[in-house]
Amino acid sequence: MEGRNIKLLLAYDGTDFCGWQRQSEENRTVQGVLEQALEKMHGFHVSLTGSGRTDTGVHAIGQVANFFTNIDSIPCDRFVPALNSLLPQDVRILEASEEKKEFHARFSACARTYRYHFICRNLLPHERNYNLYLYRFPRLEILNAYGRLLLGEKDCSVFAGAGDASLETGKSRNRYIYKAHFHMEGDRLVFEICANAFLRNMVRSIAGTFLHYEEKDTPPEKLREIIASKERSLAGPTLPPQGLFLWKVDY
Amino acid sequence: MEGRNIKLLLAYDGTDFCGWQRQSEENRTVQGVLEQALEKMHGFHVSLTGSGRTDTGVHAIGQVANFFTNIDSIPCDRFVPALNSLLPQDVRILEASEEKKEFHARFSACARTYRYHFICRNLLPHERNYNLYLYRFPRLEILNAYGRLLLGEKDCSVFAGAGDASLETGKSRNRYIYKAHFHMEGDRLVFEICANAFLRNMVRSIAGTFLHYEEKDTPPEKLREIIASKERSLAGPTLPPQGLFLWKVDY
Repeated sequence: MEGRNIKLLLAYDGTDFCGWQRQSEENRTVQGVLEQALEKMHGFHVSLTGSGRTDTGVHAIGQVANFFTNIDSIPCDRFVPALNSLLPQDVRILEASEEKKEFHARFSACARTYRYHFICRNLLPHERNYNLYLYRFPRLEILNAYGRLLLGEKDCSVFAGAGDASLETGKSRNRYIYKAHFHMEGDRLVFEICANAFLRNMVRSIAGTFLHYEEKDTPPEKLREIIASKERSLAGPTLPPQGLFLWKVDY
Repeated sequence: MEGRNIKLLLAYDGTDFCGWQRQSEENRTVQGVLEQALEKMHGFHVSLTGSGRTDTGVHAIGQVANFFTNIDSIPCDRFVPALNSLLPQDVRILEASEEKKEFHARFSACARTYRYHFICRNLLPHERNYNLYLYRFPRLEILNAYGRLLLGEKDCSVFAGAGDASLETGKSRNRYIYKAHFHMEGDRLVFEICANAFLRNMVRSIAGTFLHYEEKDTPPEKLREIIASKERSLAGPTLPPQGLFLWKVDY
């Protein structure tokens, strides 16, 4: 399709979505409701490309997507209120801008940042969908020593979820990790991780593995061996999606 | 009913509740689901008394309630996991303690604290049920000058909601206000108000009135006259419930 290439910055509450990727009619997905809104505006189906998929229950405050439009009559920034008026309250367009024809939300992205929010005291009901409950306070210095092991280009096979496409296609599971760091924000524990790209369930697997081995007092040198082993069975549990946010995509 | 008098500290996400007070079967209320859980434990209906009602959509992190139990077999603090295992995830018991026979969650309370959370930038989807969106940054020094007018014992008629019982019964609408203060927490605007008791919708009416007159640059002396007038029609709009929390009850 010809026309303007529109880039959207968008946020969603993943609680009531079956993830990002459009599926069958009965499964409510973020891509699905966005494409419905685009279809209402255009009168025909318009495909939307996201920077990447997020799983059921995972939130986003900085997802990026793009689509081509033949609507010439409205300035680019008017797509924000126009689409929001057609969207449910759990997904919001924050910005819209026109990009070159070559811009592709997925292939043009150079880095993705995710954040995991943990609460290490009684989890209050209004926090339950946006934070993961930890029954103890982990030691940040050990978690951050583990995090430093990931920096740079690493084979991430040990953290690949069962459904990751690379497991079948034999593609590289090397990823370039720019940041993997834990810190406190008030009484919330935050894990922030930034990489050029992620394998399926990789953030949830890394966080689960780190917390698992930290609790067992495993020294960082041992964790380095586990990562190098590429043995999925040595990874810790894949954590639930509550508390995980797609925070930012860089181009 | 005889038996131990159990005081509960509890929290709830008010989003999917028709407020605190038990109503007909089809309306899901906090008191209703709690009394269902108590009935499952006891085998018969047990009445629960709350410190006060909260409206549809209003949350609590420090609600207090009490009930009498004839169950002698379990220590008091075991009511916490026992009830939580019978309750939905949007209401949680935080503490349970035994009180004297005379303790009454409503009549024994000497002060209630509410908090209103506002966001003055784009409201993100995951924040929408727990914060109220303000399209502008109000001036805290003016709001806090208004707040100082409320301190002490005041006739609060101007802030009484349409359904307040005192409007029919002719009871006093004087309330003793201990605190009424706005401050920032990160990028969230917080209004905290503490009083011996509140009229119906009073917190939402005070916040709406203050923001309404602050926007019109009304000097505090003028607001003092409006409060003294007891004229409900001079109050500003009653704000929506999202963002309002029953924060604490003192005894």
